[in-house]
Amino acid sequence: MRQIVNQILRQLASGPKDFWQLIVKQDYSVKEFIHTLKELNNSGVIEKEGPLYKLNTKNLRKKPHKYLESKCPVCGIGIDLDNDFVYLKEQFRNLVRGRPLPSEEYDQGFMRQEDTVRRAVFMYERGDVEDKNIFILGDDDLLSLAIGLMKLSNLITVVEADRRIVDFINEKAKKLNLNKLQAIEYNAMKELPSDLCNQYHTFVTDPVETWLGFKIFVGRCIQSLKGAGCSGYFGLTHLEASLKKWYEFQKFLINCNFVITDILRDFSFYPEDDNKWQRFYSTYALYREMPDAGLPKIDWYRSSFIRIEAIDEINSPRLSSVSSSSEEGIYFDEEAWATPRKR
Amino acid sequence: MRQIVNQILRQLASGPKDFWQLIVKQDYSVKEFIHTLKELNNSGVIEKEGPLYKLNTKNLRKKPHKYLESKCPVCGIGIDLDNDFVYLKEQFRNLVRGRPLPSEEYDQGFMRQEDTVRRAVFMYERGDVEDKNIFILGDDDLLSLAIGLMKLSNLITVVEADRRIVDFINEKAKKLNLNKLQAIEYNAMKELPSDLCNQYHTFVTDPVETWLGFKIFVGRCIQSLKGAGCSGYFGLTHLEASLKKWYEFQKFLINCNFVITDILRDFSFYPEDDNKWQRFYSTYALYREMPDAGLPKIDWYRSSFIRIEAIDEINSPRLSSVSSSSEEGIYFDEEAWATPRKR
Repeated sequence: MRQIVNQILRQLASGPKDFWQLIVKQDYSVKEFIHTLKELNNSGVIEKEGPLYKLNTKNLRKKPHKYLESKCPVCGIGIDLDNDFVYLKEQFRNLVRGRPLPSEEYDQGFMRQEDTVRRAVFMYERGDVEDKNIFILGDDDLLSLAIGLMKLSNLITVVEADRRIVDFINEKAKKLNLNKLQAIEYNAMKELPSDLCNQYHTFVTDPVETWLGFKIFVGRCIQSLKGAGCSGYFGLTHLEASLKKWYEFQKFLINCNFVITDILRDFSFYPEDDNKWQRFYSTYALYREMPDAGLPKIDWYRSSFIRIEAIDEINSPRLSSVSSSSEEGIYFDEEAWATPRKR
Repeated sequence: MRQIVNQILRQLASGPKDFWQLIVKQDYSVKEFIHTLKELNNSGVIEKEGPLYKLNTKNLRKKPHKYLESKCPVCGIGIDLDNDFVYLKEQFRNLVRGRPLPSEEYDQGFMRQEDTVRRAVFMYERGDVEDKNIFILGDDDLLSLAIGLMKLSNLITVVEADRRIVDFINEKAKKLNLNKLQAIEYNAMKELPSDLCNQYHTFVTDPVETWLGFKIFVGRCIQSLKGAGCSGYFGLTHLEASLKKWYEFQKFLINCNFVITDILRDFSFYPEDDNKWQRFYSTYALYREMPDAGLPKIDWYRSSFIRIEAIDEINSPRLSSVSSSSEEGIYFDEEAWATPRKR
């Protein structure tokens, strides 16, 4: 289902609404909105009574889920988890107990639990969760479980190099009966298996922040998408990716036919205590330059959350397998000052 | 002063801070941050005592202003005006009484007062206000007065086609002794006067949302900037600019050597009651397609707020004067469904 259709129908699930109440809760142009409204009216899925539109339950294949509110009541921009999503925050907190800790094997480190839930809810708000096939490349944040708990998606596939995380997700999914969620062992250095290509509506990843790393991670995710109208989400720091690098990334996305629709600065913080990565610090390039920085007493590492959408047929990037000898070049460049090196 | 320097010094204005407290309150990479910290230390502007950095008042030409807090306490993303910026919200509210109402002459309509103040504060948070020359093209929102009230900028220049607004701003600036703020009558259809070119650190505009309108409005603003490191802000709707158009705009910005650093969806709402533009509605294309939509009872028109930064020397667009015969093409395209037409 197109995002705009979903954004209209879920508003009507809680009762009749007028033209303006509907247009304010959807993301597209007046022109696209009016066309969609007429289309839904003509197909008999909705009907008009006086100034109000309402669902025509007879002609609905499936009743849409009611819209859940998440807009921040203070600033109107970010996500408020203490409204309709309290249940999700609490369920997720219980679910992630005993999660695998970051390993030196991979460039790992998970964000605060509430930030993971906020990601899921921001995607929901955009219409990228309900009835969608969602592809997640790398999931030490366990976002798949947060989205899975909403029970709104059609399919959630996690591809992940770390066996511990694959097992953790599959075990929890089984226990909670989230049968639309599956995690598969896959290393992004390899080509994406063909049965995962062109199957998904939206993707999420936290790319390695070298130029090559970004291209590989986001590029493989792009290959997983069906086409026009599909969306993607990724985290990006300012800390290990300078604006010059952001610029190169954005040019790459434009060339693939994506428009950038949202950039939320410092959306996700990485908790020092929970990650227990103090022992990694001594291997950071940061300490070579600043040996007396000490260990941080605050959560300082954070990333922006970015959404893109394909405006037309996707111009998929060509990517081949990466040999293990060039892996170093994927994980490190002259800006990777807070990435652990193997000893 | 570079943003990063300002972001560091204003933190220290309220007392000594350690490496991590400083890095979490600046927008650039670990590498740039450490270089800047060392540079400030070497030049004697700051000094280190144990783990803490502090200002060296002897070597400071001017004491930096203390950092004011504006991060939303609920979601951490948007702007909270009820912390250190209460004064600004209140002063601005008093200041804008008797403001000019939208005219059919121009594509006008101002945002909610608090959203204007939030724009000013978001720019402040990024380091784009203190000691900066700020260029504003079109200011029926009166953002210049909100920034002016902070008394932190070096210079604020408004260029504006509507004589009423020019007079209103200059009158208030004089009354409040904001002598660094000036408004000048200027129509964006004309070339930008050469004494305004290459003079500013940051710009703000709300472009007309046709492709030609965007290029003219944002292009002239870009011409006002000095070069690498300079930034720009503009509002853009989804309502009259489809994602395909956003894509063309983003390609244009990339070609000019700008990276997009922030996109805050629905940052600004336009209040129906205050704008008193009910009489414009009948001329909207929207009503041709949807004659029984009625008048809105809620504020539905809103725009995203976008920040860009020049990663290198600016590749300035070539723009000439627009003859009055082609003005129609600047204000209208097939997506301008909520823009008033002259009767």
